Formats: sequence, structure tokens, C-alpha cells
Amino acid sequence: MTNDRISIDLASSAARIGRDIETLGGADYTNSAEAISRYAYTKEFQNTTDYFIQELRAIGFEAWEDPVGNLVGRNRPKGEPAFGLGSHHDSNRNGGKWDGTLGVVTALETCRLSTELGLDLPLQLLSFIEEESSGFGQGVLGSRIITQQVTEDDLRESFRAVDDGRSFWEHAEEAGHDPARWRECIEDIAGLAGWIELHIEQGRVLQDGTLAFGIVTAIVGVNWVDLTFHGRADHAGGTPMGYRADAGLAAAEVAIELERLAIAQATPTVGTAGVGEFKPGLNNVIPGEARLGLDIRSVDASVYEAVIAEIVTFAEAAAAARDLTLDVTIQALTTATVMDAGVVGALEAAATESGHEFTVMPSGGGHDTQHVAPHVPSAMVFVPCRDGISHSPAELADPADAAVAVEVMLNAIAAYMDGAA
Amino acid sequence: MTNDRISIDLASSAARIGRDIETLGGADYTNSAEAISRYAYTKEFQNTTDYFIQELRAIGFEAWEDPVGNLVGRNRPKGEPAFGLGSHHDSNRNGGKWDGTLGVVTALETCRLSTELGLDLPLQLLSFIEEESSGFGQGVLGSRIITQQVTEDDLRESFRAVDDGRSFWEHAEEAGHDPARWRECIEDIAGLAGWIELHIEQGRVLQDGTLAFGIVTAIVGVNWVDLTFHGRADHAGGTPMGYRADAGLAAAEVAIELERLAIAQATPTVGTAGVGEFKPGLNNVIPGEARLGLDIRSVDASVYEAVIAEIVTFAEAAAAARDLTLDVTIQALTTATVMDAGVVGALEAAATESGHEFTVMPSGGGHDTQHVAPHVPSAMVFVPCRDGISHSPAELADPADAAVAVEVMLNAIAAYMDGAA
Repeated sequence: MTNDRISIDLASSAARIGRDIETLGGADYTNSAEAISRYAYTKEFQNTTDYFIQELRAIGFEAWEDPVGNLVGRNRPKGEPAFGLGSHHDSNRNGGKWDGTLGVVTALETCRLSTELGLDLPLQLLSFIEEESSGFGQGVLGSRIITQQVTEDDLRESFRAVDDGRSFWEHAEEAGHDPARWRECIEDIAGLAGWIELHIEQGRVLQDGTLAFGIVTAIVGVNWVDLTFHGRADHAGGTPMGYRADAGLAAAEVAIELERLAIAQATPTVGTAGVGEFKPGLNNVIPGEARLGLDIRSVDASVYEAVIAEIVTFAEAAAAARDLTLDVTIQALTTATVMDAGVVGALEAAATESGHEFTVMPSGGGHDTQHVAPHVPSAMVFVPCRDGISHSPAELADPADAAVAVEVMLNAIAAYMDGAA
Repeated sequence: MTNDRISIDLASSAARIGRDIETLGGADYTNSAEAISRYAYTKEFQNTTDYFIQELRAIGFEAWEDPVGNLVGRNRPKGEPAFGLGSHHDSNRNGGKWDGTLGVVTALETCRLSTELGLDLPLQLLSFIEEESSGFGQGVLGSRIITQQVTEDDLRESFRAVDDGRSFWEHAEEAGHDPARWRECIEDIAGLAGWIELHIEQGRVLQDGTLAFGIVTAIVGVNWVDLTFHGRADHAGGTPMGYRADAGLAAAEVAIELERLAIAQATPTVGTAGVGEFKPGLNNVIPGEARLGLDIRSVDASVYEAVIAEIVTFAEAAAAARDLTLDVTIQALTTATVMDAGVVGALEAAATESGHEFTVMPSGGGHDTQHVAPHVPSAMVFVPCRDGISHSPAELADPADAAVAVEVMLNAIAAYMDGAA
């Protein structure tokens, strides 16, 4: 590492980031008057891609779309080593200006600064299509295509547009892409020496802790456990306490136990009973059925697997104790992904030098970086967002926070590439 | 009391009770092909009243309808002392053959036996209109009219038919009654020395305990407490356990605490969380709102009032501990009514002499007897019903059980009237 810390004009960068975000919040870039709504392969999405291509070319980067529309910008020839930065610029259908787009805008700003400050760091901007699943009901689709996590049949047949039911393939071709060459998308990550995705936190840890940013050390694995307890819907008046098979109370016990288990884990773990419903749902009828929908996440697969096993055992015991039967459905949605120690270390060092208060933290949500990380040393940076709100027009972040993070990323990348060289 | 225990032909009485019940389950007595559905002032309801009038007159009883259609049968002149027996012969709209009707049928059987066995006990049969609220959305209406718990405006204007929106008054007049004389209905209970209502249990205590019948010592007071907790619907992934305002967990804690409180009471008390619903109701969103609907019943008003106060205090503390706000609505639906020690004692003595296993128990549901009890020494007798099911075509009881209860009532009434004489 070098001791020459790169210092940027934070106010100027914040202004540029804010301008980009506001521009892309305009009418040409969303198909909704009330929200940001853009997805492949709409005109608004293409306009957004074109905006980035134009801005990248303005600073001397080559910029192109891959065979399915993922955006790549480079200041080094294709295949040569570079450090990757980016996120996604699609949105959910009732979205805000910041989710995803801020990661591409700050990647662009990092590229601009590297050029303007004469650093000439080897950089690659990458923006994935369809992170939010708005177009085809398939999340993190761009990164899954790049990393070959789909089949040709998925793209030709199975993945169908939410709007008109036609295939991904047909839509991609109609938009001028060449999906038959989708396997070549792997080249998007060829030559990447490292990867950082900046994203709004979608939580309130940074805001509530008055922290400038967070460095993500792992992306959690997400698991859903759906429980349905079956008891007897007896009359609340005619059935003394000892004669009951109350499905609702077993569900209540499990919800509380899940909180206890999540808190008890030494590694960051969350457990949520987001679905809770008693049936038939009348004050004077004992719940004959109770549904409980659990979400269990941890940065360590062995931890969430243990928590799942423990809560299912607890639920079975709670059901048995109340003379209930229990249906259990477990879905492993994503696996835990640990970020690269080298990239995280470079970010931490740069963050410490910046003098800003920050934290290392897990990402509780899934991101494209989950698919990049098995191929490229990866990390993520979180910036605060108001009250943790995302996926909503009420989503709000501060370009000044983003500029601070850009400076940290610029220093981290310089140091990392210096060490890698 | 006399030592000459009255003994009846149980098989013969069971057969007659069964025949009455099956007759009244026929097409002339219900407006539904799938269920028993009859209510004032329909043809099917009038046919049922007429059946009882005919059967009463056949054994030498006078029988008539009061000004609103409540049925009275007597073997003593109006106003002279007699012991009252009965229930209601309307049903809910998707009802069974037993709820209410069995109480009138067994009252009729008791009158028959008194005549046939030459006992000539002074008896009055009374069957109330509209216990189930099917006609005008007003429950226990007949007994409320008799005991003057309504206003003339209620009957003329407020109480409207579920079927066509016309007033109770208009329907009563059209059916040939004289609602303008409704205040005279108080005479229905004038001269009653005591009152017993037999009813199916609508619970499983008798069935599960293999008990022949139950003697009701009190009718519970019914209270509903509706709680809505308001928290923050944060993302399950992005929000560590310590940053949450989870409305669902507070609701879960309250449901479990209510069970503990109900069990802890020395007098029979039930507490039920029948409504439980988390919102928005997605696995990966922390419940921002949770509704809990509680039903709290006890035979002792001071007990349910204390339980209500304790659970509300607990809910407030649970809300405060999780940084939630809480809305509380308390509805006192009925007050607890203690049965008369003299009538209960006579039933207990006769029950003990019968040699059958029985229990004394509270009634967890409301009944017309709640309105009679403040005016006449009252009790109730419960007979088993299959799996506690009522208000359904699946409702089932056994005429043999009813015959056993009739013999007990006959002995209890004889002893009670002997003591009163």
C-alpha cells in the first residue's frame, strides 16, 4: 500500500452524484409517474443504460452492452485486469431513485475521479439487468446469466415477461440483443481483480448509529420455514382451558422462541415471524389452524442450519404438547456468502484513514455480489438510507454520504491494485 | 323432599324425544335443505310452534303464544305458581336439530311424564323466540322482551329483519301477533316458582369425561378485548434483532400470557386469543402491525374484570418494551349470572340419586336463562353433544342422554315444589 491517501472534492462529487440520481429519476427513465419503475427491456431501462454509456464514453471509457443487456464500461481492453465496480439500474415496479442505481452512479463517479485525478486506475463498471425481478419475475438475473446459473431453456422458454407472458428470449431479441450468445456474458467478469458493489443499506443500523458507511463482510443466506399448526376450532365459551387444542398458542410460542434463538447466536443472525394468522379468526373460536411464516438468515450456513433445526424441533414439541399436528416446509432461498478478506481489508484500511465512523456488518438482503463472489474477490459498501426504507418512492439517501464512500472505495481500490500488482 | 324417587321408562322417553327431534328436523320445519334454519316469523317457525301447541294440548295443557310469539304451555291457570321449563326452538341459519329445540322437546317430555305418571306437577313450558338472532340480528330477543330489556323504539324501528330490512314490529303484526302489547310478555314468567333450561353442552367436557349430564351453576360473563399493536414493518434481512419494533412478538406474548392468567384463576375462567394476524404478512417483513382478538369469560365478574385489567397492563408493558404503540378496545358483552342454589341443589340431589355420573359446571355460552335468572330461581342442565359441535348440521346429541336428564329434572322439580309448598 501507498501512504499517499487520495483525497477528493467531496462537495463536488456529492453534487455530481445527486445530479445523476435526479436525472435518472426523470420522466425519460421511469414508466410510472409516482415511482421509479424500470426493467429490461423497456425504453426507460434502455435510456438509463444509454445515459451511463454516454457518461462513460465522455471520460474515455469503452462502454457496451453484453449479449443480454448487462452494461460494461472499461478503461482497459477487454480481458485485461481491472477492478470491478457497479450494481444494477433496474428497479422494482414501485421503487425509489437509490436502490441499485446509486451503486452504478457511484461506480461512474469513481471512474470519473480516477480519470480527473490522473490516477488512471484499471477500472470496470458493471451494471446487471433484472436484479429486482420486475421484468420476468426472476431476481438477480443478470448476475445469474453472467455466472451461468441459468439454462438456455430458462431463457428461451421458462422465463416469461410479467407484462405480456412472452419469453425472455423474444424480448431480448426484440430489444436488439443477441441472447443466443448468452454464454459469452461470463466475459463480463473475466479479468476482474476484485469487485465492490455499493448499495443503500436497506436497514437502519447506519442511520441509528450515525455511521458514515458500512463494510459488508458477508451476505446472509436466506431460509424460509413455513409452519401450519392444526388443532380444534372449539367454542371459546364451552371449552375449558384443559380441553383445548389451540393452534394459535403453539404458533405464538414458536414466534417468541425464534427471537430468542436468533439473539442467542454469536454470529449475526436474524429470525423473523413475518406471517402469523389464526383461523377461523374470530374472538370466540379457539384457533383450529395457525400459520406462521419464518425468515431465518445468518452469515454462517452452519448457524442458520442449526437455528432451523432447533426451531423445527421446538415447533414439533409445542405441537405435541397441545395435541396439534404440524406441517413444515423449509425453503433454502440463498446460501451465505463470505466477502473476500483482501478486498474487505483494503476497504477497512481506507475507511480508518478516512476518519469517518463506520462499521463492518453483514448484508441481510441478497445482492448480485452473491453470484460474483465465487468468481472474483468481492465486497460491498453500504451507505445510510432514511429509516431503512427501500423499494418505495419514499426511499432516500444522501449524495454526501455516497461521496464519502466513493473516496474510501477509490483509496481501497488503489491500495488493493497496488498490492495485487 | 320425598323419598319416593320418580322413575321413568327411559327407553320410551328417549324414543319420544328422538321422534320429536326428527319430526322437527323435517322439511316443514326448516327453510334449508342442508340444515335447520328457522326463525321468527317464518312459516317453518310457526309450524314448529304449532307442533308444540298441539302436543301440549294433547296432554291437557293450555298453550298459547304471547303478544310477540313466545310460546307458553301450562297445566295451571295463568299466574298461579308453576315450575318453568324450556328453551328456544329457533335456530341459526345453518343449524342443527338440537340446539334450543332439545330444551323445548325435553320440557314437553317432562310435561307428558308428569301427566302420564299422575304426578300432576304444576308446570309451565316456555319457548323463547329469536335466541339465535337469525331473524333480526338480535340474540336472546324473546327473553329480553319478556324481561323488558328492550325499548318500544327498538321493536318498532331499530330491530330490522335480516332478510328484507323491514321492522320487527311490521313482521310481528304480519304474522298475526300484537307487538303493541309487548310489555305484557312479562306475564310469561309471572308465577314461576323456578326455572330450568336444558341445552346441549356445546363443549366436550361431558363427552370426554363420559358424564351423563352437567348441572350449570353459573353462566359466564363474556368480554372481548381487541388489541392492535403498531410497530415498524422493517425488512427482515436488513434489520438486526436489536433494531426492531416487531408488533407480532408482542401479540404472541399476550396470547400466551392470557392462557397463563386464565389457568391461574381459582374460579372457572377461560381466555382465548381467537384472532391473531400479523401485517403486512410476508415472511421477510417484520410485522408492522399485529391484531389480537381476545375472549375472556368467567362465572365471577370480579375475576374477569381482574383478568382484563391484568392482560391490558401486560399488553401495554409488552408494547412499551418493544417500542410499539397499542390500541385497546374492551367490550363487555354479557355479565356473569349465578344460578339459584335452591334449584341447583334440587338438581344435584336428584342427580346423585339417579346414580349417573355428572358434574357441576359453568356455562361458557350465553342463554335465555341469563335474562330469566334475575326474576326466577333458575338453573340449567347440559347434556352431551358430539365433539362439542353446535350451530351446524353436524350437531348431534343422544335422546337417551336427554331421557336421563328428564328423569333428573322431574325428580328435582317434584322435590323443589314439595319444599316450596
